Amino acid sequence: MASQNIVSACVLIIGNEILSGRTQDLNLQYIAQTLGEQGVSVQEARVIPDVAEVIVDAVNYARKTYDYVLTTGGIGPTHDDITAECIATAFGVELVMHPAIEQRIRGREAPADVMASRLLMARVPEGASLIDNLTGGPQGFTIENVYVMAGIPAVLQAMLPTIKFQGGATVKSRSVRAHMGESEIATQLRELQDKSPGVDIGSYPFHREGIYGTTLVVRGTALAEVEATVDAIRNIIRARGSDPVEVAE
Amino acid sequence: MASQNIVSACVLIIGNEILSGRTQDLNLQYIAQTLGEQGVSVQEARVIPDVAEVIVDAVNYARKTYDYVLTTGGIGPTHDDITAECIATAFGVELVMHPAIEQRIRGREAPADVMASRLLMARVPEGASLIDNLTGGPQGFTIENVYVMAGIPAVLQAMLPTIKFQGGATVKSRSVRAHMGESEIATQLRELQDKSPGVDIGSYPFHREGIYGTTLVVRGTALAEVEATVDAIRNIIRARGSDPVEVAE
Repeated sequence: MASQNIVSACVLIIGNEILSGRTQDLNLQYIAQTLGEQGVSVQEARVIPDVAEVIVDAVNYARKTYDYVLTTGGIGPTHDDITAECIATAFGVELVMHPAIEQRIRGREAPADVMASRLLMARVPEGASLIDNLTGGPQGFTIENVYVMAGIPAVLQAMLPTIKFQGGATVKSRSVRAHMGESEIATQLRELQDKSPGVDIGSYPFHREGIYGTTLVVRGTALAEVEATVDAIRNIIRARGSDPVEVAE
Repeated sequence: MASQNIVSACVLIIGNEILSGRTQDLNLQYIAQTLGEQGVSVQEARVIPDVAEVIVDAVNYARKTYDYVLTTGGIGPTHDDITAECIATAFGVELVMHPAIEQRIRGREAPADVMASRLLMARVPEGASLIDNLTGGPQGFTIENVYVMAGIPAVLQAMLPTIKFQGGATVKSRSVRAHMGESEIATQLRELQDKSPGVDIGSYPFHREGIYGTTLVVRGTALAEVEATVDAIRNIIRARGSDPVEVAE
């Protein structure tokens, strides 16, 4: 797929609980879909542990490589929440108390030790802007091209839609299904892909309720070319003596 | 957590469909849990696109950095299945037809173009060993410390259990729940973590059915220390006037 026009993003999923298999990540798919609608293409994701130097290195790599970086996880008040300080280190700035968050937190009475822990969530790297969080949970923030968000899906999903990204052309996607194995049409698909540089043709086998099949997904920024390519795939499937099955997007 | 004894792994999830958000990855959690039971700790995962140079670079990085590398995706017969050739490139070896797979594939008649596509799945990097795949689907293989597997969860789950890894000590995990926010006990947890270098204490807030709470997860290779730490957390919760809620592992 022609890539000149692509605005790119990298997602950094921070958390031992994902790497241990204790928790199933649900944020990457949500982020990819949400950014995709704004014309931003996630080109890489990394799942990394709660280890400061690993986080700092990953942030510095990603922010220099991609247009946008989104992080999830590690912004709460406990000892394993080290994302904000790692972002500050990566940018070489201080971690400072944000007056508006501090005021909000101090407005809710608590014992001294609890208040001290809550106030950890008021710290943002110097120069960062806040990300709205209507849930009242931990504070997300953005600094330059890096967006720092919560790991809890419900909180992330309250934050991300408040952000407007400067996207490029949006990628359109159309799919069709063949009730046959990939190999039946692989040669024809390869030829079609070779003469269709403006789209990506993806081929995904499936096995459901006793039916083996293949879902063909065409993605590209020009809808007419995407649809013409799907038409060509329908003809490839028919030439194999089968009826293409339509897939709702 | 003391790391001398850790046998490490990196998971490379290869596939545009994961990065676009079209498909929810389900393999990382399964791999992490399966390896964990064998004393292998997943320390990083990367989701990368179907782009040869990206795959080659990621494989070379990962195989030099971690004890084991596991890849998922891109081993079928279509144009977007480029994992095997990328692994060969990464190791600087040829991609060769494996006699046993070739024989199996040729045993099932097909038109010439279909056979040609199927035979693409018989190619493995020179020197690779096969991974058993009882589903009869695409062939997985291993070369040095790299294990190349299918992206379809059902196929991956048929492959992975056939592999025996040389693991270290297994990590034991115990959890307890507190019906209070993280901040209520964050100071005490931090002190406990500071004096418990042999374990990792993870703190994960949740919100379910109107209840806000925090799950505390203790992980470590020494069960006695893990359990003692969970006991200490129970006491921290009780000292805040609440009853710890037990969590089945």
